[in-house]
Amino acid sequence: MIYRMVFPLLMNFLMSLMTFALSMKVIPRMKGLFQAAGMAGKDLNKKENDELIPEGLGVVSGALYLICLFLFIPLPFLTIWFEKGDYDFPHHEFVMFIAGLLSICCMIFLGFADDVLDLKWRDKLVLPTMASLPLLMVYFVNIGITTIIVPKPLRFIFGFDLDLGILYYVYMGMLAVFCTNSINILAGINGVEAGQSLIIAVSIAIFNFCEIQGSCCWQAHLFSLYFIMPFIAVCASLLYYNWYPSSVFVGDTFCYFAGMTFAVVGILGHFSKTMILFFVPQVFNFGFSLPQLFKFVPCPRHRLPRINKETGLLEMSEAVYKTSDLNPLGRFVINVFQTLQLIEVKHNTGEDKKYTTFSNFTLINFVIKILGPLHEKTLVCIILGIQILGSCGAFFIRYQMVRLFYDVEQHHMK
Amino acid sequence: MIYRMVFPLLMNFLMSLMTFALSMKVIPRMKGLFQAAGMAGKDLNKKENDELIPEGLGVVSGALYLICLFLFIPLPFLTIWFEKGDYDFPHHEFVMFIAGLLSICCMIFLGFADDVLDLKWRDKLVLPTMASLPLLMVYFVNIGITTIIVPKPLRFIFGFDLDLGILYYVYMGMLAVFCTNSINILAGINGVEAGQSLIIAVSIAIFNFCEIQGSCCWQAHLFSLYFIMPFIAVCASLLYYNWYPSSVFVGDTFCYFAGMTFAVVGILGHFSKTMILFFVPQVFNFGFSLPQLFKFVPCPRHRLPRINKETGLLEMSEAVYKTSDLNPLGRFVINVFQTLQLIEVKHNTGEDKKYTTFSNFTLINFVIKILGPLHEKTLVCIILGIQILGSCGAFFIRYQMVRLFYDVEQHHMK
Repeated sequence: MIYRMVFPLLMNFLMSLMTFALSMKVIPRMKGLFQAAGMAGKDLNKKENDELIPEGLGVVSGALYLICLFLFIPLPFLTIWFEKGDYDFPHHEFVMFIAGLLSICCMIFLGFADDVLDLKWRDKLVLPTMASLPLLMVYFVNIGITTIIVPKPLRFIFGFDLDLGILYYVYMGMLAVFCTNSINILAGINGVEAGQSLIIAVSIAIFNFCEIQGSCCWQAHLFSLYFIMPFIAVCASLLYYNWYPSSVFVGDTFCYFAGMTFAVVGILGHFSKTMILFFVPQVFNFGFSLPQLFKFVPCPRHRLPRINKETGLLEMSEAVYKTSDLNPLGRFVINVFQTLQLIEVKHNTGEDKKYTTFSNFTLINFVIKILGPLHEKTLVCIILGIQILGSCGAFFIRYQMVRLFYDVEQHHMK
Repeated sequence: MIYRMVFPLLMNFLMSLMTFALSMKVIPRMKGLFQAAGMAGKDLNKKENDELIPEGLGVVSGALYLICLFLFIPLPFLTIWFEKGDYDFPHHEFVMFIAGLLSICCMIFLGFADDVLDLKWRDKLVLPTMASLPLLMVYFVNIGITTIIVPKPLRFIFGFDLDLGILYYVYMGMLAVFCTNSINILAGINGVEAGQSLIIAVSIAIFNFCEIQGSCCWQAHLFSLYFIMPFIAVCASLLYYNWYPSSVFVGDTFCYFAGMTFAVVGILGHFSKTMILFFVPQVFNFGFSLPQLFKFVPCPRHRLPRINKETGLLEMSEAVYKTSDLNPLGRFVINVFQTLQLIEVKHNTGEDKKYTTFSNFTLINFVIKILGPLHEKTLVCIILGIQILGSCGAFFIRYQMVRLFYDVEQHHMK
């Protein structure tokens, strides 16, 4: 068993290192192609922004990731072969690799199409939902557990365990859509998309290494490591070029790719509930953004903070609306958020109509609201600091606080 | 068994019809997105060609195809379930679907990236080769037959059968690369890429229906039908819009998508040798093109025939070179092809240097050489007529002439 675990893991690690090195070389060389294809844009948060920066480079990371995993896939099976000699091929394990890659490949494709064609929201929801179908089918036939252990405080209602049945599949399907989109909306400053993904990925890897030593489900965590280590490699090298001041932008492609990779390891590694704990900043930002995403209140095209060209610092971005145009629900939301000190609201008087301005509903704006205008590099470090704190909190909840809600045998809550 | 075969096949047929209808609606609606993204070009073979025609619409067909198959995949397995009640899930069949889709999805992604970014040849060879790895792995673990029956006339050398071993995998890997590229280079006039693919796909479907009645390997042919019917649907609707005069262009995406779909059904349906018979015009065109593709002789960027704006007819396109620049190998190739009446060579005298002009090495030019200048619509009909004749020839060889080379039990030659 040790041999079966250590050899492929070591190979995966080495291949990840090589992919990292390759990615460091390939990304700068591909920049010209993107600029020639018109996939380039200005960096809005720089004092001088005449230069066009290539965008959508996440597609290069995605392609390198696929190549690395295509080459890696045969190895775990060869290992089993050498160990056992003649054996029944473990199709059920093999199909997990292939289905995981299929979902990820689909998402890279969709993200790239979105970067190029600027798809409509409707189209963007169809393909990810479809792409997670094979994943759910594999879960259904390989794992099929839809029973959750009810936390102690709720057991008087639901009993000890609860079979969610089809609802569990709905939850997993939504997880894929959530992971991809939540990274995509915590975005807009140099390095934040790749940075948060890297921290989440490293957290998942640490969690897998912790769990792999327990006897139960080590295969699931091994599987997750196979997928997450090459991701860390491509993500780190992309972050290197995307770090302030960015020489490339990652594009929607990268957010979709990262999100689906997390969904794949969470679902097929059967730790989707723990994984959500690593997404706390994203969950907050997503919930905070909902009124704007669902258009209860006005939502401008870009919600990223904007630079004050005199100070060179980033300030909150704002949305403006005619006060009389807002529906009661929107007014209510703005009042509540203002009371909670989450946003800043200003009542301006235009020529003859009354306008109201409020800061956009994002975590990034909220940080600026608390700390005042910040330099872009400081801001991204703070956001990533929050992400790291979130992961520390996740480990604390997963390994300590869980005792309050579950009996000590930790493998119940996965 | 009949139930297991008929129900999913019927559902696949109905879903293909729906995909066709959907595709007819979606393609015109997507045109604007492509034009806005700058993915549009002039139709070089029209008298007036000011209009920019959206290109790369094959990506829409590819996406619809993926969605159709994602939704279809569970059905055959549900059928087995209803028939048998409790049963061992056939992972080995399931993985064939997933791996096939993975390869196809990878190729659509690559093709689209090529359309957008204009990749280099080197990059274009890496990803298809990688993308066929899962396919070969599935073949290895599920089918694994690398023995071919030697044709009678050669048996005195090789014996009755021959185990090609690893060579058979090399052959299959090259098949994927060949299928994708051979369609891509028989191109350049309205409707020819989608038209040839449609004829090949229909031929494969007919072949599958013929073979499915035999008891041997009906599952492999059923599998092939599942993949080929939705392809016929998206291909037919794309051809509708790509037919003379084209309102959309299919792009490299479509050629890669079509080629990989054929490779998947040929390899996993285990009839890759028969399938090559449907590619006779492509094989001829590919062999004919090789001296230009490998730069033995000069190769211009576009080799499609060009319009004579006065007559409105298409004439052969030509390549020009300084006579003294040509290496001996190139000279030899041009002499041989001229002797075989495959190309037309003109010796021009420029200002002070001597230039030679020859018609480009393509099947389309060859047709024009024999029949004289043709209208674009006539030309595409002739090319597609050749493709249909090729398929008829393929069926004749497969079902009649095979007796000369093999014993009558036809299932030996797949």
